[in-house]
Amino acid sequence: MRWHDEIDVASQRLHERAAHFLLETPLWKLRAPALGLNGAEGVEVWLKLEQLQVSGSFKARGMMNRLLANDIPASGVVVASGGNAGIATAAAARAIGVRCEVFLPGVSPEAKRARLRALGAEVVVVGDLYADALAACLARQRETGALLTHAYDQLEVVAGAGTLGREIEQQGGLPDSVLVSVGGGGLIAGLAAWFEQRSRVVALEPERAPTLFRAREACAPVDVEVSGVAADSLGARRIGAISWEITQRQVRDALVLPDDAIRAAQLWLWKELKLAVEPAAALPLAALQTGLYLPRASEKVCLIICGANVDPGTLA
Amino acid sequence: MRWHDEIDVASQRLHERAAHFLLETPLWKLRAPALGLNGAEGVEVWLKLEQLQVSGSFKARGMMNRLLANDIPASGVVVASGGNAGIATAAAARAIGVRCEVFLPGVSPEAKRARLRALGAEVVVVGDLYADALAACLARQRETGALLTHAYDQLEVVAGAGTLGREIEQQGGLPDSVLVSVGGGGLIAGLAAWFEQRSRVVALEPERAPTLFRAREACAPVDVEVSGVAADSLGARRIGAISWEITQRQVRDALVLPDDAIRAAQLWLWKELKLAVEPAAALPLAALQTGLYLPRASEKVCLIICGANVDPGTLA
Repeated sequence: MRWHDEIDVASQRLHERAAHFLLETPLWKLRAPALGLNGAEGVEVWLKLEQLQVSGSFKARGMMNRLLANDIPASGVVVASGGNAGIATAAAARAIGVRCEVFLPGVSPEAKRARLRALGAEVVVVGDLYADALAACLARQRETGALLTHAYDQLEVVAGAGTLGREIEQQGGLPDSVLVSVGGGGLIAGLAAWFEQRSRVVALEPERAPTLFRAREACAPVDVEVSGVAADSLGARRIGAISWEITQRQVRDALVLPDDAIRAAQLWLWKELKLAVEPAAALPLAALQTGLYLPRASEKVCLIICGANVDPGTLA
Repeated sequence: MRWHDEIDVASQRLHERAAHFLLETPLWKLRAPALGLNGAEGVEVWLKLEQLQVSGSFKARGMMNRLLANDIPASGVVVASGGNAGIATAAAARAIGVRCEVFLPGVSPEAKRARLRALGAEVVVVGDLYADALAACLARQRETGALLTHAYDQLEVVAGAGTLGREIEQQGGLPDSVLVSVGGGGLIAGLAAWFEQRSRVVALEPERAPTLFRAREACAPVDVEVSGVAADSLGARRIGAISWEITQRQVRDALVLPDDAIRAAQLWLWKELKLAVEPAAALPLAALQTGLYLPRASEKVCLIICGANVDPGTLA
């Protein structure tokens, strides 16, 4: 697999056919003291403000790439997700004028369903658990031939996420390190596939949703219990197969953070920098603020601010 | 008055002595459809994300410039403001290690007082109205010789605001037009002094706080009644003398917007772009979205997103 080429193809496809949908998000270069990091005056911290991406997260890149890379039947697109993947799929489908069905379990909150409907999606509520919704989604796909989008474990989705790495390098050059949150692993897979060994890509997970960390302990992807402040967007139960393959080759560090450090970094980002982000987007800063990740003097550290799908009232 | 030179001096001073305090905020270039503007495909919209500035607003530039341009006595700095000017003064004073007293009336909310105290300021509550707090602040200044910062009507404050225009030009070149909110007029004065006739600077005010609009009707600064959604940060009762002088020479358009359009643009910025901003920061987008300001085909329009001192719960 020539990942660099896949990402170049995705980038060109998105540029040519989705330029009015996807945004080039700002890369904000700061000095470490501006992030509340003392004793690190020479460290440059780059914030990739991807929470400003259309649909409120990086997922729009992968979902749009998935849709554009395939012929879409009249039955449209199906997805089982009430989170960022579902929102991004619905937004991408609307932008290119195809039908979109989103499968959700009965426990999903009405606010999520309303948001998906506002994006033009048909919301199908099935069963009690996410697994029930997923089963129904897969059954519908087999029945109608609709195009399935997966939140992280599809080639086009990973390549789409990789365009984020390509954009960072074009905007600011090569960082020394890239700190990124991991749920199912689609984003880190794309970034690691792009940067390879040219930048040090560091995986960060909540202690209560450690899919990559546990897979490394077990030497293979395994199911984990997920809970905690970031479960909403990092709540995949198992690292994706594509991500496992890429990260084993390209990513040395898989670190975990406690919920209180994640929450503190999230609140700090609003209070001090006026960035409203979801908990998952705060792990990179939490790793710096807690000292879990210690940059060298004069290191250029890029933090991926991956999403802002958060109730703003929780930031006060 | 050589305003260009004053702004160059301010910019150099801030660069040399406040580089660890002030931030270079992102300039985000988008196409008009990304802002919900249809039929304007060729228009480029630049968002100057100055709401990400330290202290949550552009005021930090002017206040820090005022402090650095003067000898500060042991009695420190005094200011009468519970809004962005007070916050910026307190933050700047703390950054350079001088005392700061903030005078507020009894009607000021406890949340504002707590924020100012958290920034190390001494909060003095006097009388019932803002005028009472201002009178006490001026009396204290005469008594102790403390340095007074004014929210908008001081040379160094206007020149500091002008560094925002200089930064935009350095980051992105010259826009065709600059849309900016007006309260006391310090920000527009700095921008108009920088851009002169090279870019068209457009003044935007709430219908319920129209200090520049009414001054133009009266051919002189006059007191106005202020209320409405943006009164918190655009609630000056009269356009400043410096701003009046500069805007009469450099600014042709002074337009007013209804509260509902301001509020709608503020909510849109959160919902669609994940930018959490205060109402005052939404006037430029409101002017585009309502059609009050109609850019030419292929115009480059710069919107000044001036502040984010907002309760995030009000964005939901």
